[in-house]
Amino acid sequence: MSKEKQFVKEITPQSEDFSRWYIDAISKAELMSYSPVRGCVVLRPDGYEIWEHIQRELDRRFKETGHRNAYFPLFIPESFFQKEKEHVEGFNPELPWVTEAGGEKLEERLAIRPTSETMIGHMYSNWINSYRDLPVLINQWANVVRWEKRTLPFLRTTEFLWQEGHTAHEDEADARKETMQMLEVYRDFAENFLAIPVIMGQKTPSEKFAGAVDTYSIEAMMKDGKAVQAGTSHYLGTNFAQAFDIKYLDRDNQQQFVHTTSWGVSTRLIGALIMVHGDDRGLALPPKVAPTQAVVIPIGPPKTRDQVVPRAEEMFFELKRAGIRVKIDDNPDQSPGWKFNEYEMRGVPVRIEFGPRDMENGQAVLVSRVSGEKRPVKLDAIVEEVRKMLDDVHQTMYSNAKSFLESNFKIVDTIDEMKSFLDAQRGFVLTGWCGSEACEKQVKEETGATSRNIPFEPAERKSACVVCGSKAEHTVVFGKSY
Amino acid sequence: MSKEKQFVKEITPQSEDFSRWYIDAISKAELMSYSPVRGCVVLRPDGYEIWEHIQRELDRRFKETGHRNAYFPLFIPESFFQKEKEHVEGFNPELPWVTEAGGEKLEERLAIRPTSETMIGHMYSNWINSYRDLPVLINQWANVVRWEKRTLPFLRTTEFLWQEGHTAHEDEADARKETMQMLEVYRDFAENFLAIPVIMGQKTPSEKFAGAVDTYSIEAMMKDGKAVQAGTSHYLGTNFAQAFDIKYLDRDNQQQFVHTTSWGVSTRLIGALIMVHGDDRGLALPPKVAPTQAVVIPIGPPKTRDQVVPRAEEMFFELKRAGIRVKIDDNPDQSPGWKFNEYEMRGVPVRIEFGPRDMENGQAVLVSRVSGEKRPVKLDAIVEEVRKMLDDVHQTMYSNAKSFLESNFKIVDTIDEMKSFLDAQRGFVLTGWCGSEACEKQVKEETGATSRNIPFEPAERKSACVVCGSKAEHTVVFGKSY
Repeated sequence: MSKEKQFVKEITPQSEDFSRWYIDAISKAELMSYSPVRGCVVLRPDGYEIWEHIQRELDRRFKETGHRNAYFPLFIPESFFQKEKEHVEGFNPELPWVTEAGGEKLEERLAIRPTSETMIGHMYSNWINSYRDLPVLINQWANVVRWEKRTLPFLRTTEFLWQEGHTAHEDEADARKETMQMLEVYRDFAENFLAIPVIMGQKTPSEKFAGAVDTYSIEAMMKDGKAVQAGTSHYLGTNFAQAFDIKYLDRDNQQQFVHTTSWGVSTRLIGALIMVHGDDRGLALPPKVAPTQAVVIPIGPPKTRDQVVPRAEEMFFELKRAGIRVKIDDNPDQSPGWKFNEYEMRGVPVRIEFGPRDMENGQAVLVSRVSGEKRPVKLDAIVEEVRKMLDDVHQTMYSNAKSFLESNFKIVDTIDEMKSFLDAQRGFVLTGWCGSEACEKQVKEETGATSRNIPFEPAERKSACVVCGSKAEHTVVFGKSY
Repeated sequence: MSKEKQFVKEITPQSEDFSRWYIDAISKAELMSYSPVRGCVVLRPDGYEIWEHIQRELDRRFKETGHRNAYFPLFIPESFFQKEKEHVEGFNPELPWVTEAGGEKLEERLAIRPTSETMIGHMYSNWINSYRDLPVLINQWANVVRWEKRTLPFLRTTEFLWQEGHTAHEDEADARKETMQMLEVYRDFAENFLAIPVIMGQKTPSEKFAGAVDTYSIEAMMKDGKAVQAGTSHYLGTNFAQAFDIKYLDRDNQQQFVHTTSWGVSTRLIGALIMVHGDDRGLALPPKVAPTQAVVIPIGPPKTRDQVVPRAEEMFFELKRAGIRVKIDDNPDQSPGWKFNEYEMRGVPVRIEFGPRDMENGQAVLVSRVSGEKRPVKLDAIVEEVRKMLDDVHQTMYSNAKSFLESNFKIVDTIDEMKSFLDAQRGFVLTGWCGSEACEKQVKEETGATSRNIPFEPAERKSACVVCGSKAEHTVVFGKSY
């Protein structure tokens, strides 16, 4: 047991202090450690493996939709940031600067990339000549850095891992199609891979990406009612094309600016899935990303060990061969009860109990991490039964999270209603908004909530602005957010 | 066609100017582009995909040998470098420094990692308590930065991608076993995946990693006779354990320092495989890493297109379903001859020609990129025939490279012999060495060659030092290197 883990004796209950619960849960399960660098964490093997599963599945989906990966430099010359006005204003305050290297002061400072629109824009202007070169559909898996004031493991760290898609198209229609396609890839992935229900919609102008024409997002609700923006997709128009002179010769032999998009998700998805599914016993990991999907625990009196353990091992190997990420824990120095707690705390979706009585009956007992259901199953059907329970755990996680989202979601007409709901019970509200930045700001000042997005499928359309009462241009989801 | 590609009209012949050939070949095949940041290149999709295949295969091998991935911060506090004396001397001149961030001057400068022994050592000292925590077997896939004076795409760039394994063990024996195991993983990978024959051995003290007790390497010979160090594995003893206080309670309840190792390969493998296999027509990619393994090219007069193309597409889909990375090029605007050149230049291992006569005969013609062999095969056996030719291409590449290495390898007794061999014909020499740094230095000064390694299996043991003539402690491979 590591020194760090020993420090966390008990996990603080969620109801007592949700933030404390979160830190306790991820530290005790050894997903991450704080590093000696301000705001940077170490992704330990179990934390990183969640990211590997996320990566593999998203990468598959990106490639299926015609994208390829590439890699662009970490360093971005200072002058690049000056080229797109909104972009520089948005990112400048968060940049770390390399000013010296190889024993010399640099002539031009280099920023560590916070995102790569500028560098990639520059390269695209070299690569793109003609409509025959379009569309360019590229994704990058990389580390990025933003010097954040307040940090929280996974959700907001100085350095984080992400993917950033950057595409260039002949016209607005094609670029907008791409923007929406990738948003839909994210929604489907969040719901069907991470078991996180999300609200899809468009960001208000004040919340959009620095340099975008339109930003779209998927928003998830954590168990404390706060929002996490789980993925974004931007239509950038010709803003970066103009800044970086990305032109092509069109079908009529005319020079045109390309239309670009960008879209990304990051390791904050790990934070989101923990805050959506975890409970007072610790993590509860969605089966498709869990480093360990099932753990076999032999039980029963010591004298039966010699019979039970070898048969349990057989089961373990059978499951492993079938591609299930399985562990066996036959350590005689720890009690079954201790092990049950340990693997529940680590979020393992399915526990397989196996004792002498089970062996006699040719069965094992599957226990669901999320519902607690105990299901005796025949040993000769163990693989399909474990698969079935993994599916059930995913479904239960999703429907629990969906119910939670629905029961903490309120449609309101007045700012007082909004305030009293958000004070009494955290969650999201849906309401009307006139479209003015002033009204949006006032909501934030009075309630602490910000606009999450303008949902594509609101539960109801509102006709009046929640602040000024004039005609609502949009029906908006507001919530406090990470 | 991109602007960059248009600049490269013809690929310079290798015999005329090997360096020029290399840059032409990788630029024209669009593996990389120069970036606006000094010494940094962009890995374009075909270049990056080679890295993805390398990554996937190595990652599989690392996991098979019990390792897991993790992720550590990009930034390393300046004080960390001071803790291991040799390490700081080795790396300090190459470090870029972040001195400002978030609009403020930093109290302590942060280096961009050139390698992560120090950061990981710090974390291990927190994680490791007892012999029960050992061994720790962790690998990281990451970008690293070294501010090199002279750069060359893939082989030596300011920023590059790599993996760095970092392990901690109870004792020297276990750590040394790990060091050698990973060196063997690299050798097997280089030879059986990249078709690059390598010389395995130990580095001389002057060439070892800054902070290592012993460094081992695999060395490959490029087509210009120069060496590329293709992978290294280090036994670090307790050097980093002492610097970062990584102690554990042993089985006798005594505090002990752990013994650590580190090992890595990088995107320079891409440079190596190009320089080992490429020729005057351009790239020749080993089938296991080639982004496109086979390309189907329909041929014949225009009037037969309507029959030939649909059948060629069927073949394409059959190969694709079988998991072969295949393309079809039925663009009527380019001649077959142009396409043959294009895909040879891009290094595609197998070309599949298919015309009306072939269709009548129920066959296609496979052409090997490396031997030029044309092999008519039955359409109903196309998948296995293409697989077979991919294997043949791999084998031919390996044996060609092996012959090249052997015919440019000379055993010498005197420095004059060494000089005249290296002047007349680039390559490696094997000779005796007394073990003194002075003699090693003199070899470099007189011949330009450095010690590559002390091979485990020298072709012959030498008894006298090539410089001073006194007793040879080692038989060493010398060569000029990238």
